Order: sequence, then structure tokens, then C-alpha cells
Amino acid sequence: MLSDIDICRATKLANIEAIATKAGLLQSEFQSHGPYKAKVSLQTIKRLEDNPNGKLVLVTAITPTPLGEGKTVTTIGLSQGLAQIGKSVMACIRQPSMGPVFGVKGGAAGGGLSQVAPMEELNLHLTGDIHSVTAAHNLAAAAIDARIYHEQREGYQAFEQRSGLKALKIDSNNVCWKRVVDHNDRALRIITVGQNEPGKTINGYQREDGFDISAASELMAILALAADLKDLRHRIGNIVMAYDLEGLPITAEDLQVAGAMAVTMRDAIEPTLMQTLEGVPTLIHSGPFANIAHGNSSIIADNIALKLADYTVTEGGFGSDMGFEKACNIKALTSKTSPDCAVIVATLRGLKANSGLYDLRPGAALPESLFRPDQNALEAGFENLKWHINNVNRYGIPAVVAINRFPQDSDEELNVLKEMIESLDGQVSVAISEAFEKGGNGAIELANAVTIACENEKSFNSLYTLEQSIEEKLMAVCKIGYGATSVEFSELTKKQLHQLTVQGFDKLAVCLAKTPLSISTDPSVKGAPNDFTVHIRELKLCSGAGFIYALCGNVMTMPGLPDKPAFMALDLDDEGNITGLS
Amino acid sequence: MLSDIDICRATKLANIEAIATKAGLLQSEFQSHGPYKAKVSLQTIKRLEDNPNGKLVLVTAITPTPLGEGKTVTTIGLSQGLAQIGKSVMACIRQPSMGPVFGVKGGAAGGGLSQVAPMEELNLHLTGDIHSVTAAHNLAAAAIDARIYHEQREGYQAFEQRSGLKALKIDSNNVCWKRVVDHNDRALRIITVGQNEPGKTINGYQREDGFDISAASELMAILALAADLKDLRHRIGNIVMAYDLEGLPITAEDLQVAGAMAVTMRDAIEPTLMQTLEGVPTLIHSGPFANIAHGNSSIIADNIALKLADYTVTEGGFGSDMGFEKACNIKALTSKTSPDCAVIVATLRGLKANSGLYDLRPGAALPESLFRPDQNALEAGFENLKWHINNVNRYGIPAVVAINRFPQDSDEELNVLKEMIESLDGQVSVAISEAFEKGGNGAIELANAVTIACENEKSFNSLYTLEQSIEEKLMAVCKIGYGATSVEFSELTKKQLHQLTVQGFDKLAVCLAKTPLSISTDPSVKGAPNDFTVHIRELKLCSGAGFIYALCGNVMTMPGLPDKPAFMALDLDDEGNITGLS
Repeated sequence: MLSDIDICRATKLANIEAIATKAGLLQSEFQSHGPYKAKVSLQTIKRLEDNPNGKLVLVTAITPTPLGEGKTVTTIGLSQGLAQIGKSVMACIRQPSMGPVFGVKGGAAGGGLSQVAPMEELNLHLTGDIHSVTAAHNLAAAAIDARIYHEQREGYQAFEQRSGLKALKIDSNNVCWKRVVDHNDRALRIITVGQNEPGKTINGYQREDGFDISAASELMAILALAADLKDLRHRIGNIVMAYDLEGLPITAEDLQVAGAMAVTMRDAIEPTLMQTLEGVPTLIHSGPFANIAHGNSSIIADNIALKLADYTVTEGGFGSDMGFEKACNIKALTSKTSPDCAVIVATLRGLKANSGLYDLRPGAALPESLFRPDQNALEAGFENLKWHINNVNRYGIPAVVAINRFPQDSDEELNVLKEMIESLDGQVSVAISEAFEKGGNGAIELANAVTIACENEKSFNSLYTLEQSIEEKLMAVCKIGYGATSVEFSELTKKQLHQLTVQGFDKLAVCLAKTPLSISTDPSVKGAPNDFTVHIRELKLCSGAGFIYALCGNVMTMPGLPDKPAFMALDLDDEGNITGLS
Repeated sequence: MLSDIDICRATKLANIEAIATKAGLLQSEFQSHGPYKAKVSLQTIKRLEDNPNGKLVLVTAITPTPLGEGKTVTTIGLSQGLAQIGKSVMACIRQPSMGPVFGVKGGAAGGGLSQVAPMEELNLHLTGDIHSVTAAHNLAAAAIDARIYHEQREGYQAFEQRSGLKALKIDSNNVCWKRVVDHNDRALRIITVGQNEPGKTINGYQREDGFDISAASELMAILALAADLKDLRHRIGNIVMAYDLEGLPITAEDLQVAGAMAVTMRDAIEPTLMQTLEGVPTLIHSGPFANIAHGNSSIIADNIALKLADYTVTEGGFGSDMGFEKACNIKALTSKTSPDCAVIVATLRGLKANSGLYDLRPGAALPESLFRPDQNALEAGFENLKWHINNVNRYGIPAVVAINRFPQDSDEELNVLKEMIESLDGQVSVAISEAFEKGGNGAIELANAVTIACENEKSFNSLYTLEQSIEEKLMAVCKIGYGATSVEFSELTKKQLHQLTVQGFDKLAVCLAKTPLSISTDPSVKGAPNDFTVHIRELKLCSGAGFIYALCGNVMTMPGLPDKPAFMALDLDDEGNITGLS
């Protein structure tokens, strides 16, 4: 089979104007950026305000393994399958970070015959939204250090008298706004800034700082949760960036940088329209993490697609305990919209890997035995799938399991799995997807199952309301959401619970930042654990995005490059085409 | 008078497709990015290969003062003036960095009725080229630290055996590739990277590093000097990023990151087409500094414009000792093209400020007396203008002085200055420009003077040939170019001269990195100094860009934010329009 980029390049794409027209956009509602990308105006939502929403299908997965289950392939394939059976459909996905593109994982455009095209444009700069997030974020970081520098250099009183500004008296040991870069750069995780040559102070005041990858910026979460430009501006103003010497929060508004940050992100508010290899209109917008943020494509993109199409297919990061949970709580509480159906992507090899019976590492070769039928491993891994089906049903959402077929899979083992699923109670159906190899034609069974599931009567419920206390909201996610037997708050967390409540931040949503590799907070615990405690180490305030995230275990917000990074394969050929991208 | 952004917004702009067609581009040679920007294909140069080049007009200035002389206003105004008198014309300018936009200086789109529009798009992300430079640059930085980490963590031999890669044995104390960000962020000038939590080494190895502003990246200079994508790729591979433990250079090619860097900059190779307020097609491309780099718009943009238009108007950074010198040496030796005429922008207030009789500081209010006629100050400052006229003529290029008129200027004093210029020997003429207030109509006298100057017979000569030794080339710029009486090389420089020659880097051009505020290397020396020594402190190799730059005095490659930065005024209005940008 050809490589993803070769398949993509061999496919004749429609001009984006034709795609936009097909999607139902007016000429005034999009701006082309080259022949295959267009920015879509938020005017579309206003124009179609009175139309009923289409159905929202959220693609999630079993607990991920180092192998990848093919969630984006299934998302794109399903949208193509729905188009094949004559439905009006759009896909909404997140913009890939360039870090993984150059690092280990490679691109995130789907694969095989189920890709967003051109995949090199999706995987690299696209229309610059991540660059805008990075620029707005680092502008604020520069503003903080500059303000500390100017105020401390001449003294607060002299500063106020000369500048006419109020001294903010930022505590340089209590700055919570780090810097960001869209690369995997472990050397930037912990740095010291504001260093000077001996005897000088012209570079500011030395303090410990660090860089996160841009996707981890609160601005990325804000972009994904904002209703419109005005809401974006308002949320940015609310970001707490540091604390003053008295421990009171300093916001972007206090620093008078919120306007400039919103200006920097003004174009990023518009989703980018592209197409799948089969011409399904696809919106790409925002790319928040699914641990320290909610890990879903933007509310704005959803709102546009739901007005334009009968079916909107989107995906949430990691397994259903992660992106899907956050879609049903953080995102749904903000957008007042909820999924009509969840597709749970599973693979034979992924389920077997989830049994805990294999030793798998990212980048290492897979054991041959994984591709042979193994009833024991399948049954052990199936517990995990069952958990995710129950989890989806818990929110009142019907589940459709998509078994993403790989070439090595035997019909026999696939049918065993199918029967195991069909014998389950609950709102669940199953379909085998061959979207990678066959595109939309390989996802017709899945598309039919999804349309049936979407007709179910809906009884959606989030796990908590914003009015509850922070502690109650955290308990709801851990106990009802994960099935934990208990929750332990560290001393620091207890102090923070009090402080955040006193400071008026208790009506925000909560976001659990835990490992995606287990339903529990211990990555080594596989399957469907039912007797575990969640330890909450620390809370972090994202008052602009509108949630407090709770750190359970180590969460890496700046990946590193492996010894043979993906970038080594990348180059340009004699015609200037990109080679080596996957 | 309205603010620049209000003038810009009140002007009815043509769709960029109309501008492209007017410029002579075929439909296949440009891609629109929204209604007012388009990327221009390098195919254009190939198609028009056999056409003769038009005339190249380079706008330069007297020694700059904190006031600004209005070089970009004159560049845009002159192009509009040439269009007004019926000439086919294009302008080529550099892309503004966002650092100054948010810092002190504000935007760089020209001003008044001589602007590139829409100015907010020019001043902010444009089509993302600077972001591409930043991303490609920082990818390489991450690659260096990752390689040091992986090699040192397991030991060179074990690393080679396991990875199959050759150990590069990078000396972590001899990495010359810093990181970049497109902001004024003084806290990042000197940082420590690779720090770890106590007892851990997962973040790499601690070393001192720093950030420059993106415009200072060698990649920016490469973008401005490359002939095409293949040349860009080749130059990137040649960049020396670090030295190994034996002192031998490690290039981007050695790190196997050059291909990925070129991939990241693939779209940046195409200039962006915009328009002036009067519809003159304008190419925006690259934005190198005029001290540590050559400070001119790209060769690619020039080559496209020279094929399409009879007149190409461009500008070089700072005074004629800086950007203009580098255009006539570094750039002309690369492009084999040279200016047909140089416009020297001068203002009454700027000349008087150049007298050294006023105490002027950036950001501070100007003394009222500066705007009153002052024959003493004018005569003292005139020496500076004379120097720049002679400097331009030295290269065999005719000079046209453009007196950029300010509302406060008296006719009488303007006429005095005009007569002083007219009485000079040499290839020089003079015109008063009112381009700011009147647009192209205010630059007709200037346009006529320029067309006449362009008919002069050309006898262009660079100051050196690449075959000369590094020392000879440096001497040529200092002694012939600046008129220095002597050149002093530091001990370090002498060692470097030897080393660079031994390592085969002696056939590169040279780039003097000195203060722009004086023709000498001492910023406090005003006027036209004729008895001074140039002290060269250190040499820096830019083997990808193709020059060695020589540090004379302190050159700041990372600006800082003032206490009341320009970003404080920026915001969005209720319609989502940007306010407060100037």
C-alpha cells in the first residue's frame, strides 16, 4: 500500500470553494487560503440560528495503548461512510501540534483512504492558529517579566509616579503563566530566565520558569471553549497569570495585555475548512490537551457544523474516561450541546494489549504474537471495552463500538469480539470498520449503526452542575465517572480548595489531569479497575478557560524528542514536495 | 488627521486577484489568502526569465534618530508617485516583526496616505512567514539539546550501537544556535536550559542559552538571500549550529534536521502580495536585521518585481552605512543585481537631531525648539546627509534626496535645505515628498527625480570580492565604506580569522554589526566623523546565509518592552475590528 502522503498526493481534491458551497456556506462566509483551505466566518452561526441542530457523533476509544487505535481514521472514515449512504455530514477535528509531527507520533490527519487533505498542510502550519496561540501566550509572558522588571528596578512608588500606572507588585516567585513553544523540547521544561551578565540587571530579575508545548496553553483551551470573539476577549481578560505579594490574583486584564492577546488571536477564532479524501467538508479548530484541558475540538466548529449538516462527527482525546468525559462535562456545560451518540474505537491488537499480558513500548517493534488469535488476552482486554461502553451509557448516550480492522486480523477473531459485544446489555451496537483500507466504503456498516443509534431517545446528563462545590465536582468525576472507591486530597489541595473558594473561583468546571493509560490514576493498572483511590496532588486554576484542573500523578506538558525523531525522515524532493511525512 | 488604521480602514481596497492581474501575474502564479493577501509562486521568475529587468530603486536614509525619518512612508509614497506619473511599479518591503508592534515602535506599514494595506494584517501574522522561521529555528534548537541528551545519557558508544547513528559529540559549552521568539522579551536574553528537579536528569543537561528575536535568526537572512527553494534547502544544511569536542563544526545537515527545517519553511519561500492604499502591488518578504544581517527585503521578491514592473522600489534598514552598504555588498554579490538609484530620506527635524545639539530619547516628548528653524543645527546635521550622498555615489549609484516633509516644516527652511543639496557636487538631485499627507500625489516630484536618476549610466561596484581574505573584506567595508582611519581586531577576532580560514569559511561575505546611530562604531558620535577606529570584538559565522558578521560594540538581538508598551492600547471593538494599532 502507498504511504499516507502518497495516497493523499495521488488524490484529486476539489477546490475549497466547491467544498464550502457543498457544505452550505455562502460566498461571504469563507475566505480561501490557497486552493484547499478556507477560514469560515462565525456569521454562519448567526445566519442559521433558527435551524435545528444536526446530530453530534463523538468518537472516543478504549484505553489507549502505544499502538494507537485509529480514532482519527475512524472519525474521517465514518464521516465518509455517512456521505456514502447519502447523509449530509461534516467532520470536526483538532489541529495537530507540530511537536509530535517532528517527534514520535507523526501527523494526525487520519490515514490510508480516510485522511484530511492535504495532510502536509493540516500537519504543519495550517492557517496559523497554533502560531497565534503561541504568540499571544508569549506576549503575556513577556508582559509579566517586563512589568516585574520596571516596577522593581525603580521601586513601586517611583514607578507609579512616573508611569501613571498602578504598581501590580507581582510576586516573582508566584508567576503561574509559563511560556510555550510548539515543539517537543525537553530542555525547556525547567529554565531560569532574567539572568544577567555579572554586575548588570538589564535583563530583569532571575526566576525559575519553563516552557509547555503550545497545545497545553490555557489559550488553546479558551479557543476551544469560546462562543465567539467577544467571549474569547472576555475569557482572556479573566486568566490569572500571577499573584501579587499579598497572594491576590493578577489577571491579563490587570496587565493590560488581554486586548493585545485577543488581537493576536483574532483570525484564530475562525475554524479552517478542509476536506477528506472523499470530499467531506471538515472543520479543523483548536487542539487542547485531554488531560490538563478538555481535549476536544472547538465549540465554534461544532456549532457551525451542527447548523450546516445533519451529522457532525468529532473526536475526543484518549479514552472515554478522558476526552469524552470532558466533552460531556466541561464542554457540554459550556455549549449546552451534547453528543447524540458515541463511537468507541477498539482494535483486536489494542484490546489484547490492554490485557496487560504484553510488554509494549512506544517506538519498539511489536511482538508477533499480538497479531495471532489469543482468546485469553482478548477476554482480559474486553473488560476495558465493557467499562468504556458502560461509561458512555452512564451519560445517557448510546454507544457504537467500531472495530477498526487491521490487515492481519482474522475474520474468526473479529467475529468472536463482535459476538461478545452483541451479548452485552445496554445501549450498544457494533460494526467493523475498514475505513483505513477502503475509505467511506469500508465504514458503511458503521455509518448505518450510527444513524440508528442517533435516533435513540436522549436522556443526557453531565456528572455535576457548576453550582456544586469544587470538592463535590471532583468527587463526582472520580467516583461516578471513574468508579474510584475514594478520593484523597493532598494538604496543598485542601488549602487550594479553600483559597479558590474564597477568591470566588468555585463555580468553574473541573478537569482531571491523569494518565490516559489507565482508567485509574496508575498507568500500570490495565483493564477495568474497580478498587482504587484517586490522589489529587495539586489544583491549577484556568479561570479564562473556565475550569480548575486537578493533577493526579505526573502530567507531562512538554514532550521530548526521541533519539531518532521523525524529523530525520523529512525533506523536500526536486519539485519541492514534502517527503517522509506520515 | 485620522489615525493610520482609520485611514487604512476607510480606504476601499481592490481584491488581491485584481492587484495580481494588474501586476502581470497569471492565475496559476498566485494563491489568495483571504481577499487582500496572496502568496506568489517562484514560477513567475522562470516564465519571465528572458525579459529584461526593470529599474531597482533602493530607499535608504540619513543616520537614523529616535524620531524616524519615514523611510517606509517614502518607499510606499514613491511607488505611488511613480504609478501616478504612469509608470509600471511594484514595491518590495520587509515583513514587520511583531516585537516592535507590541513594544515601542508600532507597526511598519508606512503611514498616512502611504501605507501598505490592510496594515493590521501586515503588522500581525501576515501569511505566517516569521512564524515559519521561528518554528524551523526552534526545531533545530530542540534537535541539538535532544542529541546532546541522548548521546550523553547512554554514552557515545552505546548510543551509536543502539541507534545506528554516528555520535556527534557536541560540546554543550559550544552551541552557537540559540532559540528565537518574535517578541521583545528581555528576560529571555540569557537563560539556563536543561535544568532538572533534584536528583533527576530527564530534562537534559544544564547549559546557558538565550533567545533572540526571530528577525535575528540566520534563517531570516537565508530566506532573504536564497534564490529558490533548492537554494534555501542547501543553505540551511550549511548552517553551523555547534562545535564538537574537537572544535569541528556541526551543521544542520549533520543533525539531519535541515530537511525538516526546509519543509517548515516551504511556504515562506513565496513572497506575499499586498497593495498600497493607492493599489500599487507590493511584495512583502523576509525581515532580516540590518546589523547582524543584511537588512533588506528578499532577493526572490526583487527578482519577481524586477521581471514584472519597470520600477521596483525597496528599502534597506537604517542609514546608508547599514542596509544600503549590505545591499551593495552582501546582497548584490549574491543576486548579481544592483540598485539603479538610491533615495536618501531626510527630514528637517532628523537633520537637526543629527547635529548632536539636542537631547533626544526614544519615547520621550520632543523639544519644541526642534520644530523651529535652526540654521546652526541644520548645517551641522547636513554634514551627515552629505556623507550619505557621497556614500551612495561611492558605489557608482546616483542619489536622490527625498526631504520627507512634516506639517510643522516651514517652506523657507525646506528651501534652504534644498539649495544646500543642489549646490553639492556628485550625482545627486533632491525632491520634497509629501507622501504621508498626500499619498502618491505628494511624491510626484520625487518620482520624476527618480526616473531621471535611473537613466544615468551605471558603473556599479561592490567594495570587495568574495575571493579576498576575510580581513581584507572587513578592511574594505570599514575603511572605504565607513571612512575609518584604522581597524583594530581583538585577540579573539585574530584567532577566529585564522580558524575560519582554516575551516574553509573565508570565501563568505562580511557583515558589520555596529550601531546604526553613528557612521562610526560609537553611537554618541554624530554627523560625519572622519577620524575614527573600528574595533572588531568578535566574529560570528553564518555559513548558511553566506556571511561572517563582525561585532563592533554591543548589538542587541533581543529588545525589551518599555514600561508602557504599545500593546496596552490594542484591543478589539464590538465589531471585532482592531483598535489602537499605529
